[in-house]
Amino acid sequence: MRTPDATATPVSTRATTKRQRERGRYEPSEIYTILDEALICHVAISDESGPCVLPTIHARIGDRLYLHGAASNHLLRAIAHGAEACVEATIVDDLVLARSAFHHSMNYRSVVLYGSGSAVTEREEKRAAVTAIVDHVLPGRSNDVRAPTTAELRSTIVVRIPIKEASAKVRTGPPIDDAEDLDLLIWSGVIPVRTVLSRGVASLDAPDGIEVPRYVMNPVRGPVPR
Amino acid sequence: MRTPDATATPVSTRATTKRQRERGRYEPSEIYTILDEALICHVAISDESGPCVLPTIHARIGDRLYLHGAASNHLLRAIAHGAEACVEATIVDDLVLARSAFHHSMNYRSVVLYGSGSAVTEREEKRAAVTAIVDHVLPGRSNDVRAPTTAELRSTIVVRIPIKEASAKVRTGPPIDDAEDLDLLIWSGVIPVRTVLSRGVASLDAPDGIEVPRYVMNPVRGPVPR
Repeated sequence: MRTPDATATPVSTRATTKRQRERGRYEPSEIYTILDEALICHVAISDESGPCVLPTIHARIGDRLYLHGAASNHLLRAIAHGAEACVEATIVDDLVLARSAFHHSMNYRSVVLYGSGSAVTEREEKRAAVTAIVDHVLPGRSNDVRAPTTAELRSTIVVRIPIKEASAKVRTGPPIDDAEDLDLLIWSGVIPVRTVLSRGVASLDAPDGIEVPRYVMNPVRGPVPR
Repeated sequence: MRTPDATATPVSTRATTKRQRERGRYEPSEIYTILDEALICHVAISDESGPCVLPTIHARIGDRLYLHGAASNHLLRAIAHGAEACVEATIVDDLVLARSAFHHSMNYRSVVLYGSGSAVTEREEKRAAVTAIVDHVLPGRSNDVRAPTTAELRSTIVVRIPIKEASAKVRTGPPIDDAEDLDLLIWSGVIPVRTVLSRGVASLDAPDGIEVPRYVMNPVRGPVPR
């Protein structure tokens, strides 16, 4: 773990970690790393029927988060029209087993981002966003695919949310038990949790003679420099 | 995959899958299985600063979803006081690589639950909920831990949300490419995604002579019959 940058501070009250403040992180680099590693995110808006949160894939380019979907997507249309959004992404690193039920926990890295989004209408930015979303899933994949047509781009809604009002929250380390529980003969420690990709399974309708890319033989998600 | 039960229908408009309706599922058993398998969920409310979504652990007992946290937890206090909530849980099963960027997708199972929660104040229900939350992380763990004291239960807020206004959405299978793309020499298929637990790493401050439970040697999360 890097040492938190003491100069990075929350930009608003709602983007300040309320509980366990020592776990709050506000450096953009730490927020970006978590957003890049998280395979999906969870996007909340409020509409006439109340709060709504849905899972979706995302990608980051610089200090902007991009989301996309079908042009009719209710949630993205609301964000495109200026609805306030809250986006959360979380990676669980360990189960944390304490002696007491009470002190059980998880090691995790999460980001919560608040903001107003806007529709991406400019063609080059839209193309860059959908390309980044393909590469978010598997770095390098966008080089190999049939690129989006103008009609496909038209039928896709893309929104951007500035990564400005955001915070990360990080827990690491062993369980923290009460002193009087330390000698109990109860196993305590951490159980690592990993998201693992396995070798790809090809479509049955594929023609012969297709080269199997490295990201399919031995798939690894990882940082894509931008 | 089981055949969807044709008698199971959505209970409200907001709990109806809007896009790709053929992926919607409304049988309680399917919704319960997804909630039980998902390690964490994502809870949204709306308050005076707008929508807010945070990750948390959950557990299900019958047709109720339980969430817990510190008594001062802002989001849980709002739900305890009757705020409408939306809870989402998602398991990603595969990355779906199509020939075209446009048809890239994921295989996933997700649940979205809408509802008003309430505080659990009755002692036995509160104890059952926190026990279920420990066992949600690793089945059987609750048998081995130091049980919660009355003071610990008092400092914990527990809310229940009825699993009534809920839907699941499920995608399975290979990529679905446009007919004119099928002969392109571009690899297409699925890349399995799994959440894997590894053998536990014991706390350094543990006394000698502690038996290592099976769920630590070879940890597997799985259904806990209730």
